[in-house]
Parts: sequence; C-alpha cells; structure tokens
Amino acid sequence: MIDMIAFDADDTLWHSEVLYASTQARFRELLAPYRQGDNALQELYETEMRNLQTFGYGVKGFALSMIETAITLTGGRIRGDEIQQIIGFAKEMLSAPIQLLDGVEEAVQELSREHRLMIITKGDLFDQETKVARSGLVPYFDQVEIVSGKTAEVYRSLLEKHGLAPGRFVMVGNSLRSDILPVLELGGHAIHIPYEVKWAHEAADRPHETQARYAELEGVAELPAYVDKLRQRDLDDPLEVSD
Amino acid sequence: MIDMIAFDADDTLWHSEVLYASTQARFRELLAPYRQGDNALQELYETEMRNLQTFGYGVKGFALSMIETAITLTGGRIRGDEIQQIIGFAKEMLSAPIQLLDGVEEAVQELSREHRLMIITKGDLFDQETKVARSGLVPYFDQVEIVSGKTAEVYRSLLEKHGLAPGRFVMVGNSLRSDILPVLELGGHAIHIPYEVKWAHEAADRPHETQARYAELEGVAELPAYVDKLRQRDLDDPLEVSD
Repeated sequence: MIDMIAFDADDTLWHSEVLYASTQARFRELLAPYRQGDNALQELYETEMRNLQTFGYGVKGFALSMIETAITLTGGRIRGDEIQQIIGFAKEMLSAPIQLLDGVEEAVQELSREHRLMIITKGDLFDQETKVARSGLVPYFDQVEIVSGKTAEVYRSLLEKHGLAPGRFVMVGNSLRSDILPVLELGGHAIHIPYEVKWAHEAADRPHETQARYAELEGVAELPAYVDKLRQRDLDDPLEVSD
Repeated sequence: MIDMIAFDADDTLWHSEVLYASTQARFRELLAPYRQGDNALQELYETEMRNLQTFGYGVKGFALSMIETAITLTGGRIRGDEIQQIIGFAKEMLSAPIQLLDGVEEAVQELSREHRLMIITKGDLFDQETKVARSGLVPYFDQVEIVSGKTAEVYRSLLEKHGLAPGRFVMVGNSLRSDILPVLELGGHAIHIPYEVKWAHEAADRPHETQARYAELEGVAELPAYVDKLRQRDLDDPLEVSD
C-alpha cells in the first residue's frame, strides 16, 4: 500500500533554518553601525525574492543577496573587510556540521526495515550532496533526489521516473508549500512535521485538517506509528487526523 | 552496439567558457585602477581552486571568488559599487542567451534518429537546468543528468542507474579531465571535441592516440559519421584514429 516514503531534508531530517537565522542575526549586527540593522532582514528578504529566478535556492545565492543588500543599505559605504565577513558566513554555513533533528536517526532506521525511503531536497546540488553524505543517513535511503524547486510538476516527474503511483507515495516534510501541498495536489500522501523556525517564503495555508491524505505530526518520532496506521487502513476511507 | 551517447553541455553543446573569459576580462579591467589588473586572473584562479571544495562548480561560486579576490587584491579598498558590478557580471552570465556551437543542432538531431542521447553536465543545478531548457535541445535527449563533479565514480553510478554497460556507452565532450579520462577508465568510449578556450583546471594529458575507445574530432559536425563508423566496427578491434 506504500511503495515509497520520501523525506524533505533541510529542517525535516537536519537543522538548516537555524543556520540561516543565526547568519541573519550576524548580518543585522554587521549593518548596525550603518544604522541599517533594523531594515536589514526585510530588505534582505526582498533581495532574495528578486534574485530567486536568477540564483535559485541555496547558500551561495543567499550570500550574494546579503552582499547586494549590504551595498544597497549602506549606499555603497560597506567596507571590503565587512563583505569578506559575509562571504565567511556563507563558508561557515556550507561547512557546518550536520545536526540531525531529535529522533530522526531512530525513526528513519525503523521505517527503513519495512519501507523504501528516499530524500527529495532542493537547493545547491553540491551543498545538498555533501550534507547527505555527511549526515550518516545514506544507508537508510534507496534514492536521493536533489531538485531546483518543489512544484507539483517536479514531483510528478520524480514519481514517473521512479515508477511510483501517487496513492502509494508518502512525502514527509516541514514546508506546507514545498512538501505538502504539491504532493496532495497529485493525489499523494503528505505528512507535515512543522519546524521550530519558519522561512517566510515557505509559508502557506494548511490543508483542510480532515483531508484523508494529510496529517500533521509534532515530531518525527511519531512517524513510524503513524505510517503503520496508514498502511493498515483502507486508503479510500477518510482518515481521522489527531491534532 | 551503442546504447547511449552522452554529451557534456558547457563548451560541447553551447558556449560557456567565453562567458567566463569575457567576465574575467571585465574583472581585470575593474581592478586596473588599483594597479592589480595584472595579478587579477592568477589570484582569481587560486581563490577559485581554494573555494572549490566549499562552493563546488558554477557561476555563483565564481562570483563569490571574484568578490573575495577583489577584496584581497585591493587590501579591502574595493568600493561597494564595484562589488555590485561583480554581482551584475554573475547575473548577466546566468541570464545570457544560450549560444549553441556550430553544427550542434544538426548533429544532435541526426544522431537522435537512431540513438538514445543524454546530457551529463556539472555545475549549479538551477543554472544548468534553465540552460538545458533554454537551449531548445530538450526534444532530442532522453535523459539529462546534472552532477556536482565528473569523476569515474560519478560516471559509474550514472551507468548503473541507467542500466548501461560501459562498452556500449559513448561520452562526447570538450574536457579531457571531466569527459574523456574517467569514461575511458571505466571501459567506455570517449570522443573529445576540443573547445576554442580552455579552463586551466580542466587541462589533462591526452590519452594515447591509438587507444581503441578514444577519438578526437575537430567539430561536432564530424560526430554522426564517426558514430556510424564506430557502430560498424567490432569494438574489440583497435580503432584507427585519424588525427
């Protein structure tokens, strides 16, 4: 009844947004002497959104957007050594140790005994590959797919590529916009595990709570039991979502 | 006898290194007022190589390395508006129109009638995807693989993934280091079509000219006839390479 359980990676398997948040805090501090600390994060977000269609997702584009924002907000007065600090922030993010979320290793290990698992993550190819490799989770996953964005179209082609029927596919992730809504749209199952820090860009309205193919869990530790329940019930029946 | 013909993309299907070269010329010019134009390119290359294991390949990492080099070479005196110009160079590179090499469309079209074709390219995922999409070549290719690097190990896993035997696989590309040597190492066929501009990092010694599974062609227009010849001969016999 379930042929594949796919996991988002950043903020689902391991911490990521905290790295962005702490870098944003340092960026804000860097601009404080220019009396621009207060505007820094709003302006940065707008720069990122403007640059998204040129740079795509990922740390390197984020770094270029920080530099651009710093130049704009300081009217070009930002100093070379300060821009070098921003590049340093990016390098630290790219080489930061992988910190798994609580309970991830246990849940993934348990699920891998009876299910095929895959990772579907978006961002910089090289960065995501090294994170997967460094996570120690590789042995539990049958497939790793790194994509530039997570639209319904992208999921559709991944399902096709791996010969998966949407009704027998489960996606687990922290982003309603990227992990949940597009998968529900295709007729797949989606399990939302919210993360402590949210990126504004990923915000979206929650699906109707009683939708049969959707659930929200508080933590990944609840996942194996939930998947068991999912497997045992008839997928055509509406699901009781405990919330 | 040939199950798949794979093409590198940058400088094999479309021009890429000329974009880097013209950006480097602009970078050098930008630093000339600081009396650092002469060192600029050597220093940039060294910065790129140092950053490769953090940034990987691609335009965004190249841009960050240019910024870092400009700060170092000017002792931090480079101005904000000049760094903004460097970011502008990167954006222009990322949105530049795709210019196919002479004869590519005809050769690819002709080969696609009797062969399965794929693209194997390295670099930024998002950038490479949009280039493939904008190239107009998508209808001729069965598969597109974007990888973070082109080692023998990467080719091995791609061949495995697509169920391809090395002896029935042909790789076509401009880089001895990335397209030719690792494929020959695995027992595959490799056809080298040198490009007019070379990136120092991709330099490598040419394979022995009489190696049966290797050929060098002057241009992609020669490819269909060469593939026909390859298909007709017994793969176990040494190949006469006309050079």
